[in-house]
Amino acid sequence: MTAPSGGVVSPDITRRRRLVEENLLRFLTPDVCRIPGKLREAMEYSLTAGGKRIRPVVLLSAGGVVGGNEEDLLPFACAVEYIHTYSLIHDDLPAMDDDDFRRGRPTCHKAFDEGTAILAGDALLTEAFRVMADSPLAARDPGKAVRAIALLARASGAEGMVGGQMMDLYPDRSTGRSSPQDARSGRPDPGASEVEEIHSRKTAALFSASSGMGGILGGGDESQVETLIRFGRALGLLFQVTDDILDETGSFEEMGKAVAKDRAREKLTVPAVYGMEAATKLAESLSRESISALSAFGESADTLRDIVRIVTTRRS
Amino acid sequence: MTAPSGGVVSPDITRRRRLVEENLLRFLTPDVCRIPGKLREAMEYSLTAGGKRIRPVVLLSAGGVVGGNEEDLLPFACAVEYIHTYSLIHDDLPAMDDDDFRRGRPTCHKAFDEGTAILAGDALLTEAFRVMADSPLAARDPGKAVRAIALLARASGAEGMVGGQMMDLYPDRSTGRSSPQDARSGRPDPGASEVEEIHSRKTAALFSASSGMGGILGGGDESQVETLIRFGRALGLLFQVTDDILDETGSFEEMGKAVAKDRAREKLTVPAVYGMEAATKLAESLSRESISALSAFGESADTLRDIVRIVTTRRS
Repeated sequence: MTAPSGGVVSPDITRRRRLVEENLLRFLTPDVCRIPGKLREAMEYSLTAGGKRIRPVVLLSAGGVVGGNEEDLLPFACAVEYIHTYSLIHDDLPAMDDDDFRRGRPTCHKAFDEGTAILAGDALLTEAFRVMADSPLAARDPGKAVRAIALLARASGAEGMVGGQMMDLYPDRSTGRSSPQDARSGRPDPGASEVEEIHSRKTAALFSASSGMGGILGGGDESQVETLIRFGRALGLLFQVTDDILDETGSFEEMGKAVAKDRAREKLTVPAVYGMEAATKLAESLSRESISALSAFGESADTLRDIVRIVTTRRS
Repeated sequence: MTAPSGGVVSPDITRRRRLVEENLLRFLTPDVCRIPGKLREAMEYSLTAGGKRIRPVVLLSAGGVVGGNEEDLLPFACAVEYIHTYSLIHDDLPAMDDDDFRRGRPTCHKAFDEGTAILAGDALLTEAFRVMADSPLAARDPGKAVRAIALLARASGAEGMVGGQMMDLYPDRSTGRSSPQDARSGRPDPGASEVEEIHSRKTAALFSASSGMGGILGGGDESQVETLIRFGRALGLLFQVTDDILDETGSFEEMGKAVAKDRAREKLTVPAVYGMEAATKLAESLSRESISALSAFGESADTLRDIVRIVTTRRS
């Protein structure tokens, strides 16, 4: 994440991001998981491509709000990043978005080949669940672990991320469910606009699960977990709207991938459907909604507030 | 499964297979999981293609050996079939084995398209974990559930099935680790022949996990679970060797898919590496090994013994 102009990235964000970076491969070393050479190379290639690590940082920071232990949360944070990385590998495939560059480097199927990229994605998705179920916290408190696993699986699967990618690939423009006012509500439901439903499934679900998992695993009560799930959803929608805006206004150098491709492909984006001004207003509204969702928490949620500010003003 | 010549399929196998058939879609209905229409069609198309359901039947039967409750085990049995089905969808893709037919019907990417097939596979893999983590048994006894989830994830991931498919796609014939006597040991390790390591990862791992999960979830003690894991591995290797033999000797009508393709593709199969006679002897040896692994169990393991007999004499 680029710091907001003139702003300072919270030391907690920097530290947690580094913690994730340093531990991302720890659950895949040969003594833990015997992986054939080329498959391991492809998995590590995509995992170490230098992403923002925002989802695992959200998980760790949400856990911090309710007093969770960072070492306990770390396998789950890495699992979320494995799932995010697998989704990028598969989305970039020729049969999907057909992208050649990602984070400034060739995409996995370009650096390796399609078969390897499909399998590297499959492996990362599966290992995410192994890492969570095999974690010390799962051994000590399996009730929390299965709740977190269920939340992440639902958010990543047919109802969430995979379903969102499906709708993104094959939008159903015939449903007539799209109406401008839906885009402001922040509460996607079957009646919401199609672009918002895609965003809700494809992006917000995983953010929401990350935040909720931090709450569950960190020992939050029901109401705290609910609040963190709601916060994560608003933050995820905000992240996607700013992504849509940056696709229109950013450069290849800033983004590390092709830009203005969404428009070329006639993808359903907020600027495309409602115009840039409405998109900017929606981002502001989601930014406020994210911050206000945290009102029940005191200083312990300052890192989450910093994340909202960074996402709101990001340039990449 | 075709019954052995002159034999009768155990009523327990028939009943359990039907139980799996009848419940396979139960965890994906719209009230449980809101799936975009075309994605749901593709998932259901592949799930209802009429497979043998041998892995879930093994799980339920292994659970029966240690006195498990069938209704408790059912979500886990279906999860194993979701994972098996996803692996077929992805293996059939043009970038992998490039198969047009499966179980006598067009493969998923032929009936739909490549993007949909990739996502249907991703969704089935993810929903498998959701179904397990969301199950009544996971709520009541989460310790058993996380152990079963960890076992299945390890067997399906980079160390197991996905790793095996990778080695199958890109065999490393240069390692020189192949020696005929390795193929008889039934204990694949890094020194074992490459074909055996591929079979061990690609097929035996999932059989082994299915059997072990039945043991864990059914309430077996450590020694019973270990025995069932060992049994499942031998049964899985047996299943793969008979699959290799049938690829050489079966017909399209019997198999519902192209035959003799392994040879045409120069795949590493037991008949290709060691000859048909050695393959037949290996099958007999694995059949005996499977049966003898069950010696500690009495009549309660008769269904598992029947499964061994059916796999040994199968024609499809």
